[in-house]
Amino acid sequence: MTRPFSFHLEAQDGAARTGVLHTVRGEVRTPAFMPVGTAATVKAMTPEAVRESGAQIILGNTYHLMLHPGAERIARLGGLHDFMHWEGPILTDSGGFQVMSLTKLRQLDEHGVTFRSHIDGAAFELTAERSMEIQRLLGANIVMAFDECTPWPVEKPVAAASMRRSMRWAQRSKAAFAAGGEHARDNGLFGIVQGGVFEDLRAESAAALLALDFDGYAIGGLAVGEGQETMFRVLEAVTPLLPAARPRYLMGVGKPDDIVGAVARGVDMFDCVLPTRSGRTGQAFTRRGAINLKNARHQEDPRPLDEDCACPACRHYSRAYIAHLLRAGEILGAMLMTGHNLTYYQDLMAGLRAAIAAGALDDFIAAFHARRARGDIAQIM
Amino acid sequence: MTRPFSFHLEAQDGAARTGVLHTVRGEVRTPAFMPVGTAATVKAMTPEAVRESGAQIILGNTYHLMLHPGAERIARLGGLHDFMHWEGPILTDSGGFQVMSLTKLRQLDEHGVTFRSHIDGAAFELTAERSMEIQRLLGANIVMAFDECTPWPVEKPVAAASMRRSMRWAQRSKAAFAAGGEHARDNGLFGIVQGGVFEDLRAESAAALLALDFDGYAIGGLAVGEGQETMFRVLEAVTPLLPAARPRYLMGVGKPDDIVGAVARGVDMFDCVLPTRSGRTGQAFTRRGAINLKNARHQEDPRPLDEDCACPACRHYSRAYIAHLLRAGEILGAMLMTGHNLTYYQDLMAGLRAAIAAGALDDFIAAFHARRARGDIAQIM
Repeated sequence: MTRPFSFHLEAQDGAARTGVLHTVRGEVRTPAFMPVGTAATVKAMTPEAVRESGAQIILGNTYHLMLHPGAERIARLGGLHDFMHWEGPILTDSGGFQVMSLTKLRQLDEHGVTFRSHIDGAAFELTAERSMEIQRLLGANIVMAFDECTPWPVEKPVAAASMRRSMRWAQRSKAAFAAGGEHARDNGLFGIVQGGVFEDLRAESAAALLALDFDGYAIGGLAVGEGQETMFRVLEAVTPLLPAARPRYLMGVGKPDDIVGAVARGVDMFDCVLPTRSGRTGQAFTRRGAINLKNARHQEDPRPLDEDCACPACRHYSRAYIAHLLRAGEILGAMLMTGHNLTYYQDLMAGLRAAIAAGALDDFIAAFHARRARGDIAQIM
Repeated sequence: MTRPFSFHLEAQDGAARTGVLHTVRGEVRTPAFMPVGTAATVKAMTPEAVRESGAQIILGNTYHLMLHPGAERIARLGGLHDFMHWEGPILTDSGGFQVMSLTKLRQLDEHGVTFRSHIDGAAFELTAERSMEIQRLLGANIVMAFDECTPWPVEKPVAAASMRRSMRWAQRSKAAFAAGGEHARDNGLFGIVQGGVFEDLRAESAAALLALDFDGYAIGGLAVGEGQETMFRVLEAVTPLLPAARPRYLMGVGKPDDIVGAVARGVDMFDCVLPTRSGRTGQAFTRRGAINLKNARHQEDPRPLDEDCACPACRHYSRAYIAHLLRAGEILGAMLMTGHNLTYYQDLMAGLRAAIAAGALDDFIAAFHARRARGDIAQIM
């Protein structure tokens, strides 16, 4: 029997690929950007508005949801999709990254990690087995293997030990996921390549994961401070090692030019809080570069955020109005800015997909950078 | 020539009335509830969602808008309707109430009031003439006369002096409004009956305003702490003094049972921050009374806020989910709660209009109270 979770490549242009990920909750055209819905909501957006932005899949955070309202509670209420009224596919992370970045008083060993909630100090344990259980209770369509987020910068022996532990956890994740019955049959599990900025460690990690045969392969531990040039170098080393027939997901990336460069290097999926978080604080992404709506010069500007954007914010509102909302601390400011930024990201992904399908990715990338360079000049004037 | 601003009574049931207010921006069926859009936005709502709740008219606050972003700036950007993308009619208050309630270091005399912004301390002056100018710059479809908000409780001589000054300001407002040319021709000006809880002062105020002939009559200075019984007594004294052919607006009211009682006493229009403000803090209005979503008992409740409500929150989300959003401080919680509460208020007004048209207001009111009484019992169990 064919599993409902599958990936089909449709075209390639150099190392870049476009295709379709099929899930029981519908399809995802790749390269894809996944808005982050940390606490069972993409902040400041209705699910209808998320869909309207062009998003086909969103990301949920195991760490936040296990604390509040709890995975068992969400399961009793029908699973994460019903709980938050998002009908499309959901990818959940394993919780490992947030445990490392948000908690204090944690203890990490071969078994897993114990920690205290950053909200109320309650004690929790997270292991490969518990992470798989939580993601099954949530009803995730793409489950991420439990891994350790290697700190950066880090000495190579530390990165190696951390990666090897993550590979042992990947094996335990695979076994625990497979024991999930119907959920495992219907949905996918991704392994996560680790190894920091060390290409030989990355190769060792990829080989270990390939031996386990995952439904997709993520590249973790990047965009943590190493810089775009190093990130691209690691991608160029890793993506050729991954099977062409499986989707590739670069975790936590990134800025628009990070995404464009990673797509050119063979990545299919992305997630990042940047469009949502920076939208709430006043940064709008446009085809001519990012603008800060809190700058005084926007207060009388009757133009939309981006004249080439068809999102609700750009169809109906001026920069002056949005600048007013942000200064007044009005919720609608966060709503409009988030909706715009997510639309910008989805439009960028649609443009990348079309360019790859047409074999014209180089031209697309050249135009992408040229428009931003001209925008920078326009904004100085 | 007939002015585009007009009011047509369609039916009466006892003292209660239902009709239609015609404006250049469309019609308003009365009795009507106006959501408050203080700073050029109904907080946490898109204009489309405000319209979807059933609202036909919204209120804007002169005081807030004159401070930020400024009436002249809004005029340069095309007026308040275009600025905030609300195509329907807008009523603006005169600014008097907020100057009294929000500012410090104010000086009040016969000319008007000077004050410092509660935001940044900048100095401003507000007079009858400036209030009319600001409301014209905003493009208000219903302009409110400039008045003094009499404090409560207050001695009768103070209330009398305050009311008489407001009547002199009403005369100056009328003259300044009439000088507004096209704006005055197309839109309406309401006088405001003052006089505190003193029926003879209210009668004197009403007579003074009727002599000036306004397009509608507001009742101000109520719901300031005097209690529902006293408020209803004042309404019973005032509404019979007002011309049947003009709309009557009870300012800043109120709770659902305040509105029901005031409609029965002949009031046509209302505004209040209660559905929006209390929505953001977790109070949902339902046909069975108000519920506080921050109570722990809602955290596992799969039911909607109100099983008889068709708003987006009630169609798609559980109390458990909304309780989660509110606890997590998520913006979507404020969005869903506000949308629900505004829909509840608009449904209530639609029910009142239908009951009056059918000559069945007494039955409607009896059912309104009985359902809430049963709800109270259900919530104790």
